[in-house]
Amino acid sequence: MEFQLEQAVEILSRTPATLNALLRDLPVAWVLKNEGGDSWCPYDVVGHLIHGEETDWLPRARVILEHGEVKAFEPFDRFAQFEKSKGKDLEDLLDEFAVLRQNNLAELQQLNITPDQLGQRGKHPQLGSVTLRELLATWVAHDLSHIAQAVRVMCKQYGNEVGPWKQFLPIFDTK
Amino acid sequence: MEFQLEQAVEILSRTPATLNALLRDLPVAWVLKNEGGDSWCPYDVVGHLIHGEETDWLPRARVILEHGEVKAFEPFDRFAQFEKSKGKDLEDLLDEFAVLRQNNLAELQQLNITPDQLGQRGKHPQLGSVTLRELLATWVAHDLSHIAQAVRVMCKQYGNEVGPWKQFLPIFDTK
Repeated sequence: MEFQLEQAVEILSRTPATLNALLRDLPVAWVLKNEGGDSWCPYDVVGHLIHGEETDWLPRARVILEHGEVKAFEPFDRFAQFEKSKGKDLEDLLDEFAVLRQNNLAELQQLNITPDQLGQRGKHPQLGSVTLRELLATWVAHDLSHIAQAVRVMCKQYGNEVGPWKQFLPIFDTK
Repeated sequence: MEFQLEQAVEILSRTPATLNALLRDLPVAWVLKNEGGDSWCPYDVVGHLIHGEETDWLPRARVILEHGEVKAFEPFDRFAQFEKSKGKDLEDLLDEFAVLRQNNLAELQQLNITPDQLGQRGKHPQLGSVTLRELLATWVAHDLSHIAQAVRVMCKQYGNEVGPWKQFLPIFDTK
């Protein structure tokens, strides 16, 4: 499937509602348990998405449009949510994410990105040269990846409870 | 996490809304593409969940409560949706699923299942002896597994579009 800005926005615009439907007002047992070790729980995932809205996707799009490859993106802190989410409950985070996403999509629309601009290049601190198209496609894939992660982590809480059915559900073996 | 009926229902009752938020009115490119070969697209997944509501979870719970291990469950047809969904659009399927799920959860509540009954055993045609608790836990895990699948399948459509970011997103390597 080739990247089209309109189709990408269709996904980006519904992620807050998807996370709301999936997570809001669930018993904490579902949202605070992870996959063991230092893996993330659904609560951590929402905090991570918030930090992405604030520092990653749209800010980086602006860097590409304004500076091209001259100015590398700020490195993204994948663990910022562990400090930033402190004291907030999941419902606070869901509200915060929804507002940030809505504002970022409004700004994205105002940028009026042309097909030519999608091919403009920026500089990723680790990956090197990347296009605006790749950045925006990754914004979408990153959303979907973390929704899938939150759902998988919840599923895994029943790893023992499903008994012999476990063998029919390959999700229990994925990371 | 130990199975508790109330916590299980919290997940089961929100699956229709989660799928709605995720899928309703999306461009067909997002909902009709699969992972290649005979893998399923999100549209197929919703059809499969419908068939589960009609023939699997609650019907099997009733078999356990009424017949114990004397009467084995009817085998579940994992491919029924390919015939049954014909001529319906995704929005029809989402509506159908939501109604079936709501009715099944109302019936589940009327069954007034006691902790003792959760330990009652039935006979799965392949897995042999299973408990009602395991069946109901699997209903939940099955929902979550297929939500994660639908999301993953959508994500994979951008496998080429994300460019070098692919290496940061392990979801592209999972099945």
